[in-house]
Amino acid sequence: MTFSQATAVEALGASRYAGVLHQGWDIMGITNGGYMMAIAARAMMSETDGRVPVSMTGHFLNPGGAGEVEIEVVELKTGRTFTTQRAVMTSGGVTLLSVTGSLAAPSTSTMESAMMAGSPPDLPPPEECVRAVPAVDAPFPPPIMDRVELRIHPEDASTLLGRPSGSAVVRGWFRLIDDEPIEALAVVLASDAFPPAIFNTDLPMTWTPTLDLTVHVRNPGPHDWLKCRFRTRFVTGGFLEEDGEIWADNGTLVALSRQLALVGR
Amino acid sequence: MTFSQATAVEALGASRYAGVLHQGWDIMGITNGGYMMAIAARAMMSETDGRVPVSMTGHFLNPGGAGEVEIEVVELKTGRTFTTQRAVMTSGGVTLLSVTGSLAAPSTSTMESAMMAGSPPDLPPPEECVRAVPAVDAPFPPPIMDRVELRIHPEDASTLLGRPSGSAVVRGWFRLIDDEPIEALAVVLASDAFPPAIFNTDLPMTWTPTLDLTVHVRNPGPHDWLKCRFRTRFVTGGFLEEDGEIWADNGTLVALSRQLALVGR
Repeated sequence: MTFSQATAVEALGASRYAGVLHQGWDIMGITNGGYMMAIAARAMMSETDGRVPVSMTGHFLNPGGAGEVEIEVVELKTGRTFTTQRAVMTSGGVTLLSVTGSLAAPSTSTMESAMMAGSPPDLPPPEECVRAVPAVDAPFPPPIMDRVELRIHPEDASTLLGRPSGSAVVRGWFRLIDDEPIEALAVVLASDAFPPAIFNTDLPMTWTPTLDLTVHVRNPGPHDWLKCRFRTRFVTGGFLEEDGEIWADNGTLVALSRQLALVGR
Repeated sequence: MTFSQATAVEALGASRYAGVLHQGWDIMGITNGGYMMAIAARAMMSETDGRVPVSMTGHFLNPGGAGEVEIEVVELKTGRTFTTQRAVMTSGGVTLLSVTGSLAAPSTSTMESAMMAGSPPDLPPPEECVRAVPAVDAPFPPPIMDRVELRIHPEDASTLLGRPSGSAVVRGWFRLIDDEPIEALAVVLASDAFPPAIFNTDLPMTWTPTLDLTVHVRNPGPHDWLKCRFRTRFVTGGFLEEDGEIWADNGTLVALSRQLALVGR
């Protein structure tokens, strides 16, 4: 099943959509947040005339699990350049996710760069990185590692190899399986698909629930491989942020992401 | 008028609140976004039993101006630790702002730090920094500079002194006037009160409309002076991000912020 199929939505009328959280897009039975946001964003796109996500913020309210969901989209404003909407995803009457975001024509975000004070992560070629594959009889690596192709920098692959680097950074390649090109929705997924950067520290390697995730898509593609770098700098007051930079192989910035998560206990 | 007075809201019943966008909290007649978010967040707080903002994301839909506003708060979820809500601010039937955010008891975010890979900006004492004061007969510096006390690092005060540093960074002190202590709502204001960091580059010194702003409050205070650092790293596709770090004078992290804005024309 391709990513497009796994995030498909069916219009029910009155800005309501049916979708499915598919089996296998989960970590310990809990559906991946970026995947859920991509489904909500698919419904949001469907309400526009070809606009794609520029900025998406998701608030995670209750854990998702495999099964049917409904998404209701509310338009907040449509202007000449941007459409801003809210989408709420529910399952059996339980609200899983609220997304607020802005969409624009893809060409809006393909103008030239005026300043780049940063650069892509330095990664060995994909075949020299560590492929993440799901564990057969353990919760980690989780099943979602089969739905995308992650190739993690050997120095950062502690969570796969059992030796933390000591630095809260994860760098790696991301692409969709079956040669499906990466567009804005898959960029949202990429922002939440890697093992938490703090798994490379001595913090507990346990569930770190995300409160909210924002993805700013600066270049919606299409892309093939993405070069990604996720980093946590501050673990304070029981909270941590994880900041992501996502780059195209040609050196253009694809997206910045940030999530606020709770430190696992 | 104190910040508390300027952000006061009056309950109208049914989770609706009346507020006022006061004169003087503006840039070229357009009300400051962080100030508007603080008013919305005040209404959100009023719906809880003493919880304060942990994470606030605002989407700016139409420019605000001095006058009365109404805020409607909708609860998305209340759990043992967090309340997640949405607030929509309107003026005369026009939607100005949508805020989604989570609140928690202040004590939730005062646990000890487990990792700090970053440090406060190195600032001369406030009296050796450049005080921003409103221009009498020019749009910049704007009137809001009178409502808070900003003391900008002399190296970054180009927008006040007319010589850009060349680096898209602004560092400075922030406090409220009248010795009012800084709590979570003022932290939200602080995240949007400084001149744009890109004013220190050769990009046009013009209006940079914010699409969305997220503030993650890691320590709600109370605080006296805040040490702030704002930085833009990527100006691509007509967009720019501005990332803020806000610190207490004692070296604890108070907040991280990020906004997505449009490059001015």
